[in-house]
Amino acid sequence: MKLHLITGGAGFVAVNLTRRLLQEGSAVLALDDLSRGRRELVAEFDSNPSFIFRQVDCSDLEALSAAIQEVGAPVAHVWHLAANSDIPAGVTDPRIDRDRTFLTTFAVLEAMRRHEIPELHFASSSAIYGDLGEREIHEDIGPLQPISNYGAMKLASEVQIRAAVEAFLPRADIFRFPNVIGVPATHGVIFDFIRKLKATPDQLQVLGNGTQQKAYLHVDDLIDAMLHVSRIEGRYNVFNIGPKDDGVTVRMIAQTVRDRVSPKAEIVFGEGNRGWVGDVPRFRYSTQRLAASGWSPQLDSTQAMVRAVDEIAREELAE
Amino acid sequence: MKLHLITGGAGFVAVNLTRRLLQEGSAVLALDDLSRGRRELVAEFDSNPSFIFRQVDCSDLEALSAAIQEVGAPVAHVWHLAANSDIPAGVTDPRIDRDRTFLTTFAVLEAMRRHEIPELHFASSSAIYGDLGEREIHEDIGPLQPISNYGAMKLASEVQIRAAVEAFLPRADIFRFPNVIGVPATHGVIFDFIRKLKATPDQLQVLGNGTQQKAYLHVDDLIDAMLHVSRIEGRYNVFNIGPKDDGVTVRMIAQTVRDRVSPKAEIVFGEGNRGWVGDVPRFRYSTQRLAASGWSPQLDSTQAMVRAVDEIAREELAE
Repeated sequence: MKLHLITGGAGFVAVNLTRRLLQEGSAVLALDDLSRGRRELVAEFDSNPSFIFRQVDCSDLEALSAAIQEVGAPVAHVWHLAANSDIPAGVTDPRIDRDRTFLTTFAVLEAMRRHEIPELHFASSSAIYGDLGEREIHEDIGPLQPISNYGAMKLASEVQIRAAVEAFLPRADIFRFPNVIGVPATHGVIFDFIRKLKATPDQLQVLGNGTQQKAYLHVDDLIDAMLHVSRIEGRYNVFNIGPKDDGVTVRMIAQTVRDRVSPKAEIVFGEGNRGWVGDVPRFRYSTQRLAASGWSPQLDSTQAMVRAVDEIAREELAE
Repeated sequence: MKLHLITGGAGFVAVNLTRRLLQEGSAVLALDDLSRGRRELVAEFDSNPSFIFRQVDCSDLEALSAAIQEVGAPVAHVWHLAANSDIPAGVTDPRIDRDRTFLTTFAVLEAMRRHEIPELHFASSSAIYGDLGEREIHEDIGPLQPISNYGAMKLASEVQIRAAVEAFLPRADIFRFPNVIGVPATHGVIFDFIRKLKATPDQLQVLGNGTQQKAYLHVDDLIDAMLHVSRIEGRYNVFNIGPKDDGVTVRMIAQTVRDRVSPKAEIVFGEGNRGWVGDVPRFRYSTQRLAASGWSPQLDSTQAMVRAVDEIAREELAE
């Protein structure tokens, strides 16, 4: 039985990954400092003897190392998902992304060296690319100019991992995530819109003019892609993960949420095509490398969005 | 009179930059923790009332901020040169590059925000590119896969600066340095060869088979290029700095040093075309952007190397 360590183990993606790994017969050691992750999200696995949860700040090398030591069995894979996920918070205070994203990656690498863990799977982000205008964004594009601290510290993490592969780490996969949606939702535009409509059912205020377009992947597809890549040969594998389409507009998301949650609400748009500092307005995301490796998503951006709106609405409205 | 802050102010490049800035009538606040920089290297400027030196660890935001406060006048430019410069040391212990390169950049940016300093000039490195084989390396190339912690943390610094330009910083220049040579030398292959020959005048041991080829720029040309770029218009300017040629081989450097220092010594080569982990064997470095901006070096790699061998030999042999 293979043991998988998941950092950020009480977060949105981790819950879905844990479910899949346990279903496949693996064991999971989930670590999370519970600063943004929530213990109840993984409570469904507590009765499974192959699941262990520990409250650990993974940026603390000694605490992380002690948790690995304590479990007794050798760890085969690290799925490194722990990071700051609040982009605007990191723009206000860059220490958040520095500490919670970059320094956590640094500690994870040191723990892997110390405990001789051979395989790292890292949740990077499409935010590492910055604003490349209308160019199609493939994995080897340049220049890389992330415009948020979030993107900067994801990229800093990637390159530290790359240097670790040169020095000691047998294998690393870099997943560059798009916007991922599904449940359990803890943040994101759909989640925000539903919360807003719960608070003011007659009006939905939207940041920006709604023309921002984003590609969305459903979390079920994401987990599928991550597991697929983790089984490809290679020492250092970088993959954009995403749908094949160019995405849906914020306007369409707002309308879908409004129709699902509070059909009579008025949608009020702001100005400009950027909702906040560090937000990239348009994005042509190439997933050709992933497709060439034999994987395609089940849902396109619109289908993923519509399904996630329904799932999150059920959860948030406790229907 | 403009006030320039130089971090790593007692290092090799800083000494040469300070000399030029003072000659041009500017004032210089030089900060250095003296971990690798040496106080005596800037002693020649102590009698100049426009020069202030303070021993400060620039990764310590409060100490850095206090030094800026104390000087009383507004700082117009930061030349951020402080970093770990020992690549192999950082491969052995990645904390060195993390703390001394990346976290120092982070603190410098925070200090610039706090004190509203508008212009940053950052000494990055060609090591951010990693091993791109025979491709010509222009500034916008991808993928960026640094293979040393040194290169990784220089790139992490660049992208943190890029995000700062988006959030608050009016201007940043990124200089991607080649191998820079000249005096006062504190490290590098010429320095090492001369020291080795001082210790064992009959033999010079060379790491690798000597076929490694590197481009070298003389520090006089480097300072010239940095000042040139700092006067170009633009908010975020990235420039490779280097000679126009493909460089000189380690074999040729070894011979030049031997002929200058100990003509009868035997040169003994090792095996392979890499001297150490993280060392890139061959490098085609495009400086077309710099040339298009109107600047060219006075010396090519060979001329720079021959001049530097003579300068360093004079210094080291106390002729």
